[in-house]
Amino acid sequence: MAPEFDAHRSTDPSSPIWNPGEVPHSRTPVCVLGLGLIGGSILRALAEAGRPAYGWNRSPSGADAAATAGFDASSDLEATLARAAAGHVVVVAVPVPALDDVLGAVARHAPGAWLTDAVSVKGDVAARVEAAGLTSRYAGGHPMAGTAESGWSATAADLFTDATWVVTADDGTPAEAWAEAAAVGLDCGAVIVPAGSVEHDAAVARISHSVHLLAEAAAVTAELDPAASRLALSLAAGSFRDVTRVAGTAPALVRAMCEGNRAALLDALDDTIAQLNAARTELADHGTVADLVERGHAARGDYESITRTPFVPTLDGEGWQRRLRERGQAGGIVTTLPEGATPATRAW
Amino acid sequence: MAPEFDAHRSTDPSSPIWNPGEVPHSRTPVCVLGLGLIGGSILRALAEAGRPAYGWNRSPSGADAAATAGFDASSDLEATLARAAAGHVVVVAVPVPALDDVLGAVARHAPGAWLTDAVSVKGDVAARVEAAGLTSRYAGGHPMAGTAESGWSATAADLFTDATWVVTADDGTPAEAWAEAAAVGLDCGAVIVPAGSVEHDAAVARISHSVHLLAEAAAVTAELDPAASRLALSLAAGSFRDVTRVAGTAPALVRAMCEGNRAALLDALDDTIAQLNAARTELADHGTVADLVERGHAARGDYESITRTPFVPTLDGEGWQRRLRERGQAGGIVTTLPEGATPATRAW
Repeated sequence: MAPEFDAHRSTDPSSPIWNPGEVPHSRTPVCVLGLGLIGGSILRALAEAGRPAYGWNRSPSGADAAATAGFDASSDLEATLARAAAGHVVVVAVPVPALDDVLGAVARHAPGAWLTDAVSVKGDVAARVEAAGLTSRYAGGHPMAGTAESGWSATAADLFTDATWVVTADDGTPAEAWAEAAAVGLDCGAVIVPAGSVEHDAAVARISHSVHLLAEAAAVTAELDPAASRLALSLAAGSFRDVTRVAGTAPALVRAMCEGNRAALLDALDDTIAQLNAARTELADHGTVADLVERGHAARGDYESITRTPFVPTLDGEGWQRRLRERGQAGGIVTTLPEGATPATRAW
Repeated sequence: MAPEFDAHRSTDPSSPIWNPGEVPHSRTPVCVLGLGLIGGSILRALAEAGRPAYGWNRSPSGADAAATAGFDASSDLEATLARAAAGHVVVVAVPVPALDDVLGAVARHAPGAWLTDAVSVKGDVAARVEAAGLTSRYAGGHPMAGTAESGWSATAADLFTDATWVVTADDGTPAEAWAEAAAVGLDCGAVIVPAGSVEHDAAVARISHSVHLLAEAAAVTAELDPAASRLALSLAAGSFRDVTRVAGTAPALVRAMCEGNRAALLDALDDTIAQLNAARTELADHGTVADLVERGHAARGDYESITRTPFVPTLDGEGWQRRLRERGQAGGIVTTLPEGATPATRAW
């Protein structure tokens, strides 16, 4: 957690005490919209990194909590966006139901800002950004970190340290928007994985959303045999504890993730159900589960042995977005930006 | 891990250095058949508890390793069972494919011994014990502990400390067999859950065996989208890591557990698949996964809030086995045996 002193100094470079230890990946000021767990932690992390940053929260109590902790925060959206209009980076970290309203406000009050977000699905958000007329300023973001807690009180400057942070590179993504979105993630301590919006949604449907539903189904199944339900929970050990852990996540969060990624999640669920049906048939007809068990063990081995290779992205030339996506698909991660990717100084 | 000195003293009460710190729950000597992870750890734990114990292993190398570590171990099954014949407790801890041979040898060479086992399914083992004519000497056991490792080199005296150890109480189970089987678990540091063989198998199908197959299916699903398989593994975070952890278990172990509990596992799989199909339909038709997520969250809450209540079992009177099963179903655990449940002394 950033001491209050750090928080103050890093949000005001004109202050005599502004003296960050490291040079941030961009000097463009960052405007964080929504100061819950993710947005609030971004504000804290950027402040700690010496990056000028300020925030807005819909509820005055959330904005007051951030201001009391020494951060530059307001509950006046129009005034906040007026500051961001001169080419700052706007990070949208509000719940999905509030997205369209907030994007509309950005289009009205800060159409010249760079735009990214922190929502866990990307195709749906890209469509909303397009509808708001902001695609030429946008690169999507997905910081893959979180806790079971929510709200400003749960925020932490180190929430994203060494976490994975996806920045989307679709065919129309502007290079400077991508660089500014990536710089936000890097300044929060994360590593950047470039991905297409569609591929991102397919991947997280398989490694997160369907996995949450499997955990829920496992927990429900333990109680479904009336002759043994209490006994089952009493005997449950490590495998049950681990597999069902994420069933402890707040239902509203799981629903928001899953329901926001419907098409990709349906594909993933179909594949999972097909695996289980095949194993069920193999067990009933031939007394064995060899096929699923061998393939599952091999897939877990692939996961355990995956390597990620840092590379410096090239953000120009025909097809740079496709090449960036291919590097991300091949395990590439971005930990530093090429020189000149973001302006070293900017009026603000 | 027991120091070698402890191991020596505890296996030979005639030795001047035999001086256990605590009185074991039974003094009946224990003969452990199979010195892999589970059997070897039982031998170590009993020795540490001051319980006279010795073992047999099919492979001379395993028996030699135990003997070199200071334990009383042999690879001569007939000679080992000849020692056990005078009313010792035989613990069968061999793989399922070796069960019938070993039970046949017990019937021939030590029919007067008490008999228990450490196999993870109970209905199938009870049927094999019946076929060997040993039901009147038998109470089944299932120590619910393990590691990803196997063999003598993985054994540890504390493997069962505070673990759950099921001892089966079916209608024909003899009281002294139940008490001797429970005493083995207690002397290994575990707590005893009494259960019927059928209820045990239904419960573990739901909290362990089907859960392993879900983990395998989750791991496989992550790789099934060819456009995003490497990206998916690269983005996989905590939820995927936890849910698929047990897919790292050796396939032979998962197959042995699952295939040995076929009928109960098919019931559990059917319930899990039905949950996932219903969620898939709800998501496709109504855009929500609310029902599964709410019920999964509640079930995980039930698991987290379960309480287990120690009680001293009554091992006589018409229907004592049924009453014991009911206590186990209601969350009862046995941590001590009633006075006189096992002989305080016995020739050996």
